[in-house]
Amino acid sequence: MALRAIECVPNISEGRRPEVIEAVAAAVRATPGVKLLDVQSDASHNRTVVTFAGGPNAVAAAALAVVREAVARIDLREHRGEHPRIGAADVVPFVPVGAATMEECVALARRVGQEVWTALRVPVYFYARAATAPHRVRLPDIRKGEFEGLAAKMRQPGWAPDIGEAAPHPTAGAVAIGARPPLIAYNINLHTTDLAVARAVARAIRESSGGLVGVQAMGVTATSGLAQVSINVLDHRRTPLARIFDLVRLEAERYGVAVAESEIVGLVPLDAVVDVAKAALRLHAFDAAQVLEARLVD
Amino acid sequence: MALRAIECVPNISEGRRPEVIEAVAAAVRATPGVKLLDVQSDASHNRTVVTFAGGPNAVAAAALAVVREAVARIDLREHRGEHPRIGAADVVPFVPVGAATMEECVALARRVGQEVWTALRVPVYFYARAATAPHRVRLPDIRKGEFEGLAAKMRQPGWAPDIGEAAPHPTAGAVAIGARPPLIAYNINLHTTDLAVARAVARAIRESSGGLVGVQAMGVTATSGLAQVSINVLDHRRTPLARIFDLVRLEAERYGVAVAESEIVGLVPLDAVVDVAKAALRLHAFDAAQVLEARLVD
Repeated sequence: MALRAIECVPNISEGRRPEVIEAVAAAVRATPGVKLLDVQSDASHNRTVVTFAGGPNAVAAAALAVVREAVARIDLREHRGEHPRIGAADVVPFVPVGAATMEECVALARRVGQEVWTALRVPVYFYARAATAPHRVRLPDIRKGEFEGLAAKMRQPGWAPDIGEAAPHPTAGAVAIGARPPLIAYNINLHTTDLAVARAVARAIRESSGGLVGVQAMGVTATSGLAQVSINVLDHRRTPLARIFDLVRLEAERYGVAVAESEIVGLVPLDAVVDVAKAALRLHAFDAAQVLEARLVD
Repeated sequence: MALRAIECVPNISEGRRPEVIEAVAAAVRATPGVKLLDVQSDASHNRTVVTFAGGPNAVAAAALAVVREAVARIDLREHRGEHPRIGAADVVPFVPVGAATMEECVALARRVGQEVWTALRVPVYFYARAATAPHRVRLPDIRKGEFEGLAAKMRQPGWAPDIGEAAPHPTAGAVAIGARPPLIAYNINLHTTDLAVARAVARAIRESSGGLVGVQAMGVTATSGLAQVSINVLDHRRTPLARIFDLVRLEAERYGVAVAESEIVGLVPLDAVVDVAKAALRLHAFDAAQVLEARLVD
């Protein structure tokens, strides 16, 4: 791919107060060279996911600005919500787009982590591809105990933050900063209202119960009433969408159930779409640089 | 699609003299706001296809510059080659990319046609979607008689040029300027060396012998030795690649032959790739604006 950009998807522990959400979005919009792509708030989670992208320096500046706003405006001592969290700015992942590399994203995580501590005195954990130890790769492990248990956790062996003192910021806790591939939210609707089929298929295809690596899945009922296999694809280059679709189709067939349709929720990287076309048309030698629009923006 | 651009693909009647080809390419490179995407010369055709894209004003300026260089440097009275031609600058098509429309391209063809006559005194035929009569839509009809027969043809009823006097430019002939959808060069290799199978499949799928509209196809032998169905897709929004692939697969099956692989030659618009993914994954509601890279360039 010709295009080269870094995507950043901070998760902020505020999903209810519009003025805080707007201040965070405004901090992104005010950063030159960065494009705000999406802002999604969830009131029950009391959490907002902000998506933006641009060149590395611009994205680093916007990420620091987002953390700054969150730290200034959110007091975790008064925060209630369904989603586990350790920080006012809870998670800040950097994601390579197009020709950008994971190594760049790891370097960016390290740099922004240092800036967050220096400027805001919020301690930092590095996670995912930026993690400094295997037991600190996964967010659920880092978030275990949440903000309320963070002071005690930081004193345990192996749980001192990567940057900063081993004591939480009094109102903003800590922040997990990392690098990861793009996450694709992908749902497949089955031609049945029987939720049990979707649950059985989800079990068959997800990594945690013997299925495809990098695939999380659960069976739910879609708003249409159809049974749905709701999927997170953690690394689409390793486990492409076409393989997931085909395995769902085959597993559903065991119950005599066909796939009605599938849907990609939100944004998807070009190479994931190109990989589907390559599989479908047996385009063994196709390159994403052959996409006309990609050539226009390099 | 968020991106909005015009592609222009002039065909120049020179495929042998590098200094002429380079002068034409340099004229594109020297035009601000235009990106030169490809230059392909064929010595036996004695013809060069130049591909560039950009905003409408920049592309119009580059197109005029290309015609100017061709008219200045090519004398059709001395031109020999396998490909039929009426002009030094033979064909100038404008193609909508992303959110650009066919109507914009027709308007651009008209405007550049007027500029070519005013500045260079080369008469202009409008073709394809820019044609002014049904019998002047197809290039083979416009080119019939070629440069050598052009003076006589222009005096026949219905064959006066759209712009300019009814007499060819003495050395540069005339130019066909038009608007059309992107053309996709698409080859499908069969698991056989039997050329007769590729020819039978090509006959079955092409418009001219009862197949799919907007599809040209012939059976050839690929450099690998495999029989190949070599295809031009004239309007991929009407006749998507997935439908063509599937029909070739089914027609080849009648001979017990499988599809080995397929290949897209050169550039392809994003929406053609997205349409393949939509068909393969049954993504009924997917929009090309969900492609992350497309969002970054709007």
